[in-house]
Amino acid sequence: MNYAREAISRIAGYVPGEQPQGQPLIKLNTNENPYPPSPKVAKALRDFDWQRLRLYSEPSAKMVREAAAGVYGVKAGQIICGNGSDDLLTIALRTFVGEGEKLAYTEPSYSLYPVLADLQGAVRQPVALNDSFDLDQDAWKQAADAKLFIFARPNAPTGTNLDKTAVRAICENFKGVVWIDEAYVDFSGDNCLSLIDEYPNVVVSRTFSKSFSLAGLRMGMAFANEALIYEMNKVKDSYNVDMISQIVATAALNDMAYMQANAARIRDTRDWLAAELAKIGCKVLPSSTNFLFVETKRPAAKVFQELKEARYLVRYFNLPRISQYIRVTIGKREDMEGFLKTITAIDARG
Amino acid sequence: MNYAREAISRIAGYVPGEQPQGQPLIKLNTNENPYPPSPKVAKALRDFDWQRLRLYSEPSAKMVREAAAGVYGVKAGQIICGNGSDDLLTIALRTFVGEGEKLAYTEPSYSLYPVLADLQGAVRQPVALNDSFDLDQDAWKQAADAKLFIFARPNAPTGTNLDKTAVRAICENFKGVVWIDEAYVDFSGDNCLSLIDEYPNVVVSRTFSKSFSLAGLRMGMAFANEALIYEMNKVKDSYNVDMISQIVATAALNDMAYMQANAARIRDTRDWLAAELAKIGCKVLPSSTNFLFVETKRPAAKVFQELKEARYLVRYFNLPRISQYIRVTIGKREDMEGFLKTITAIDARG
Repeated sequence: MNYAREAISRIAGYVPGEQPQGQPLIKLNTNENPYPPSPKVAKALRDFDWQRLRLYSEPSAKMVREAAAGVYGVKAGQIICGNGSDDLLTIALRTFVGEGEKLAYTEPSYSLYPVLADLQGAVRQPVALNDSFDLDQDAWKQAADAKLFIFARPNAPTGTNLDKTAVRAICENFKGVVWIDEAYVDFSGDNCLSLIDEYPNVVVSRTFSKSFSLAGLRMGMAFANEALIYEMNKVKDSYNVDMISQIVATAALNDMAYMQANAARIRDTRDWLAAELAKIGCKVLPSSTNFLFVETKRPAAKVFQELKEARYLVRYFNLPRISQYIRVTIGKREDMEGFLKTITAIDARG
Repeated sequence: MNYAREAISRIAGYVPGEQPQGQPLIKLNTNENPYPPSPKVAKALRDFDWQRLRLYSEPSAKMVREAAAGVYGVKAGQIICGNGSDDLLTIALRTFVGEGEKLAYTEPSYSLYPVLADLQGAVRQPVALNDSFDLDQDAWKQAADAKLFIFARPNAPTGTNLDKTAVRAICENFKGVVWIDEAYVDFSGDNCLSLIDEYPNVVVSRTFSKSFSLAGLRMGMAFANEALIYEMNKVKDSYNVDMISQIVATAALNDMAYMQANAARIRDTRDWLAAELAKIGCKVLPSSTNFLFVETKRPAAKVFQELKEARYLVRYFNLPRISQYIRVTIGKREDMEGFLKTITAIDARG
């Protein structure tokens, strides 16, 4: 006897990237930041009065929203905070897509999107990226009658940015809610935040996991007009963001220069590595993120395995169109120098 | 134009108890613990290497599950951790109840339960507690063809325990999943944890918010057989419990004696206050929790307001059957002495 809904019992669920505990691996598999969070984070934790944990946190994460409003030039009422941006994506599905209705999402992209459709009992409506892993100008037509269209800009796992004119065409023409997942935006040259004021149906989400070096904290934000935020607030758990996360995220937002300097270092390392990989004949997609998507000469699954044996843990996806690539998170320069040597030895056999 | 699902747009959502920020109120309204968390929590926070926050947390909160397995005598595989037990209740609905299917829940009880039904687009199936605010022996018949039956034992906001024979009758006869919300169990004399080994359809949930003095942390656990845990794991966000919460909750579980001593102090204060209130002619329901449900002589809404003006913030529910009660969290003895004086002055007018 299985007590779960049929929509749940028949699926496997989402499989996150491996989080090896205590093994001596160089972890380039889940797009974590190689640099620690801001020293202001350390200070906020040190100053935190642990006795306050007996009390509930402020339900709306007001201090984070107010700090973010100042940083990003929006109103605090245009922000909802989540327990990671995954929490916000779940809230999106639950707010905008009913059982049997359609979720549109780009493909290939973050493999959680179709799983979220499954969990909601919604219908998957993939929108294929073109051969450059970019949006076609009429991509919105493929989303058709979906209630929600989610895409990542820049995209994961390809690292490519998406054409902004095609994004605008989606905002203009798609009838449902457009969710622009900007998890990697701080490694890119531009963003779509201002679209929330131009269109009533646009949500932009961000995370503290990548550029702010706070993956372990679970903190995300979504920006939209107040009418959309109002509905999503009904769906979120009352106290979805804990007290420590609120304090730490606020501290991180109060040190944007630190985050930006780290992002710049990572971009430099990324661009250096991409050029070096090209020199040894690897095909590397143009990246606007903190990772590179690398087409290997030998079978990617084998290269992945051999890299792991050499202590470099990267990510491999056995999925259509991308099974010949590995995704390599950009770590510190010295780690990437070691990685370059290793993959040169491994993939040059091909 | 409202982009939200009809199930969402037509509801108001759940309204949590007020969390006054920085006002000089004696907060007896959300069943927080008046004592700080264990000193081991302070030590764990002090020892925590903040630089590790750049990494993702272990997805399954393994360290917490292993500590809890030791404490409660179950297998780590029989536990799922949540971002507060509210997260687990949301996971319950999403795992077991499809749109248009029924959620059974006792009434009066935690007012989140019917809201969770609404959010899932499920049908509310209230099961009335009897005049003693207890389960009737055939309560399971009222739950009938629901997919999930949630009740709190001990119950909130009444504070009463629920008859265990009636609970067993539910486990035996109800065809769906039985969810026993034991948020307040550490203030009670017994618990239902062993039922998870007796019945394939039983889940018992716990929280760190009350007895462990960690409301601000957001940490909950649910216990069940591994088949039910397997399905719920598909539904939870991959990294739903952050790194700091895992470390802090583990520290709290490693100091059960501290939690139990606090719970005993609170029970003593509760029993003392209940007796004192009876002396001044207040009707107080028997409590197995860290709060008292008090029938006031004058209109409860007025008593609530006048208590607030006197700096005592309690909880009032303008709902059928309980609109003549106030719910009073048990604070420190000295605070409850002040409360007793104040309510004596206020309600003696009645």
